Amino acid sequence: MSADVVGDLRPTIAAADIEGRWVRVYWDDGTISRYHHVWLRDNCPQLRHPATGHRTVDTAQIPQDCRPSAAEVTAADALRVTWSHDGHVSTYESAWLMANDYSNGARNSHPASVLWSAADADAIPRADYAEIVGDTSARARFLDGFARYGLGLLGGVPCVPGAVLEVAALFGEVRTTSWGKVFDVRSVVDANSLAYTNMPLVCHTDEAYRDPVPTVQLQHVLRAAASGGESTLVDGFRLATDLRREDPEAFRLLATTVLRFRFADATTKLVSDAPVIDCFPDGRLRAVRFSNHSATPFLVGFDEMESFYAAYRKFGAMRESARYQLRVTLGPGDLYMVDNRRVLHGRTGFAASGARHLQSCYIERDELMSRLALLSRS
Amino acid sequence: MSADVVGDLRPTIAAADIEGRWVRVYWDDGTISRYHHVWLRDNCPQLRHPATGHRTVDTAQIPQDCRPSAAEVTAADALRVTWSHDGHVSTYESAWLMANDYSNGARNSHPASVLWSAADADAIPRADYAEIVGDTSARARFLDGFARYGLGLLGGVPCVPGAVLEVAALFGEVRTTSWGKVFDVRSVVDANSLAYTNMPLVCHTDEAYRDPVPTVQLQHVLRAAASGGESTLVDGFRLATDLRREDPEAFRLLATTVLRFRFADATTKLVSDAPVIDCFPDGRLRAVRFSNHSATPFLVGFDEMESFYAAYRKFGAMRESARYQLRVTLGPGDLYMVDNRRVLHGRTGFAASGARHLQSCYIERDELMSRLALLSRS
Repeated sequence: MSADVVGDLRPTIAAADIEGRWVRVYWDDGTISRYHHVWLRDNCPQLRHPATGHRTVDTAQIPQDCRPSAAEVTAADALRVTWSHDGHVSTYESAWLMANDYSNGARNSHPASVLWSAADADAIPRADYAEIVGDTSARARFLDGFARYGLGLLGGVPCVPGAVLEVAALFGEVRTTSWGKVFDVRSVVDANSLAYTNMPLVCHTDEAYRDPVPTVQLQHVLRAAASGGESTLVDGFRLATDLRREDPEAFRLLATTVLRFRFADATTKLVSDAPVIDCFPDGRLRAVRFSNHSATPFLVGFDEMESFYAAYRKFGAMRESARYQLRVTLGPGDLYMVDNRRVLHGRTGFAASGARHLQSCYIERDELMSRLALLSRS
Repeated sequence: MSADVVGDLRPTIAAADIEGRWVRVYWDDGTISRYHHVWLRDNCPQLRHPATGHRTVDTAQIPQDCRPSAAEVTAADALRVTWSHDGHVSTYESAWLMANDYSNGARNSHPASVLWSAADADAIPRADYAEIVGDTSARARFLDGFARYGLGLLGGVPCVPGAVLEVAALFGEVRTTSWGKVFDVRSVVDANSLAYTNMPLVCHTDEAYRDPVPTVQLQHVLRAAASGGESTLVDGFRLATDLRREDPEAFRLLATTVLRFRFADATTKLVSDAPVIDCFPDGRLRAVRFSNHSATPFLVGFDEMESFYAAYRKFGAMRESARYQLRVTLGPGDLYMVDNRRVLHGRTGFAASGARHLQSCYIERDELMSRLALLSRS
């Protein structure tokens, strides 16, 4: 469709006819659209559930030779199709036909992501907790920013244990795992993870060994370290996008080699397989999974091992570089929320063992996006 | 490695030397294995966390030119490597080297799946609820069967509302969604889904519009219909595997076309993108997502639309065919559990509106597999 299709200026249907296995729609701006018979029947608005828009007829059961006996334009600028095999009448609004005009390139759109690196610190969505509790449009703005950046920073969260669950409840349902609903991140003796020491943690996505991987993580600072313990954050989609441009072969290796991630202790054994860069079949980025500590030994062909290591190490170095890595000093009451399939997080080492205390939990992205959609609707 | 590597008969290390960018290990059965320097350093057992086996050194920070100054065999049949840049000594057990011998084809293994169709009804894992509560080895057998078949049937579950949550708690943590922890499946007035009518439901995977999609679903029958309401179950991996062999082009179209699934009502708006057949980059099946009611209009190129429909309709017809579709009559106290990324479920229509009552909930596969691993260990 031409770019000037806006508001009431959009074209109307001038005529329609049947040609072979499709219906032709002639728009009054000269555009011609074509819709296959099977596609029209499959998407008949009168065979959809009125409340949810879901199909009520099984696509596989549409007769192979279904075809219209007539295709006409109605007075209300709609296309009316009468079906020869059962006499059913389907009526398609012109705006819907235009939005779904695959013969002229209509495709599903994707929400815009904003890729970021260290220099974009000021653009990261930030909000005050009290504000997003009380003001639903502020909450919608914050969630919209989170959806685009994969990261959001909140201040003013009450410094009481469990507060992270109250924040999470604003955005979704908490995912309970074998660690419980909420888990504490602080230095302990006999830590079963580097996370529970005062050592630096290089950037990673969380729980890469889970399947499904948790999609959104919240981390709430209850007590900061006396010195150190800065949070490090990296946009994995920025890394993948830059790598695809700068070193396509490295990108290809990371997108096609399936690694195995693993966690095992006395009470838990978790294993998951995934590539570092996970793409949809059409090439669009789907997820980044980078968890160096939990990746099991790489087992690829002998002749590919060195190239794979070069690609993996390049990605690993990018994530720790000053160009890409955002460092933020979070104090008590601060909280960050990451899209765990996109944004890597870590921390610098810190001085006083036992002082720093964070609480963390997971929610899932579908609920968060649903709540954003509802807030945006109202 | 040769097939006779079992028990104490496995070969021992005869010698080791350094050749170019790798270490060569000579086994006393004549096999030669090669391990790149970077791979050996990256997998040094002495640089792994003692409790979890996780890496404690960032792979990206290993020096580019790391190489051993010596590679020797120890008296205990291990390989000892001394590193030239820092003098660190790494010791690798021979059994571990053999299991990870990528130069001779060692790769991550995958748990065996058993593909099934309607004729295999008797092989589907079944158990009595009381038995798996009281007997952990019976529970392990049931879960092991579930992992291989993607389906399990339980009998004898108490016919009280909420019992499905007690069953779920044996296997994992319940996933709470906007529908709550548990949801009721019965005929209601003003249903927002075909599920809540007495109409037949063609086979589908659940909640295809969620991201992440729920991975395991439990359905518990509290009250059966007077007549009809049989449960229909289909192994999506069997369909995909047969389609790949019988019609590779149809398989390719279903594996490369990303569909959009959607649910929207007054309080929820969920959208997720995925292909019908989701493969790992190496071609292994990852998930099947088939939800005809919630798929939005297909928007692919005009010239591909008819082939795509043919492929989609073929898959859709396979799932409803007597060859693939298992039908089971479940009575009060019966429960089925499906791997929702593999097994499709549905039901036949039923007579008396309001009589049939099921309760359903979701858990995630990672926790289930972890509990199975722990039960199998003990």
